[in-house]
Amino acid sequence: MSDHAEAPGAPLPAFELPYYVVVFSSVRTAGDRGYGETSDRLDALVAEVPGYLGHESARTPGGLGITVGYFRDVTAIEEWRSIAAHRDAQKQGRAEWYEGYTVHVAKVERSHGFVRD
Amino acid sequence: MSDHAEAPGAPLPAFELPYYVVVFSSVRTAGDRGYGETSDRLDALVAEVPGYLGHESARTPGGLGITVGYFRDVTAIEEWRSIAAHRDAQKQGRAEWYEGYTVHVAKVERSHGFVRD
Repeated sequence: MSDHAEAPGAPLPAFELPYYVVVFSSVRTAGDRGYGETSDRLDALVAEVPGYLGHESARTPGGLGITVGYFRDVTAIEEWRSIAAHRDAQKQGRAEWYEGYTVHVAKVERSHGFVRD
Repeated sequence: MSDHAEAPGAPLPAFELPYYVVVFSSVRTAGDRGYGETSDRLDALVAEVPGYLGHESARTPGGLGITVGYFRDVTAIEEWRSIAAHRDAQKQGRAEWYEGYTVHVAKVERSHGFVRD
């Protein structure tokens, strides 16, 4: 998952329970350093994980980025964590791409949405 | 809480358990319509809620915004939900500021962070 994709025209909806959110907040280093290509590849890979529901990202130019991944259960998250290309990207992230990041894995208890008519 | 504040230089850290995340993803309508002023006021108010740990926001220009609030427990979230100025802002958000939004309230099960040396 990445913040490289185009911003969508609408937020993802509230999914039916149960599901989890994985919040990834980060500050990037300068330059691309192969980040864009890798993140496109990971976007395609995560979509194949059973129990993956979606993800969305926002990044303030020059500042903080937040990506939220939505997964049905812990098994889906563990599957995503264990994929070799993702593990390699995590290593490269610490070596090159990120000044800092924080990951929060959380079980959703309630959710709701609003869409303008 | 809002996405109006300057992006910080680092993501918020992984807090000690237990805590909750409130993920608010949104797409804005065009124009400010008083949004900036209200969100500055709410930023000050939320900081006074007992059990509030912090919040961070990112918004891709012209696209999706994601704000994540961190709270110690459900009581803190309910306190924040019930503040009159916040309730008024929620109404104005549906009337004017947002094309759409989704809120996910989730209990954190694990978290970790990385900071470059």
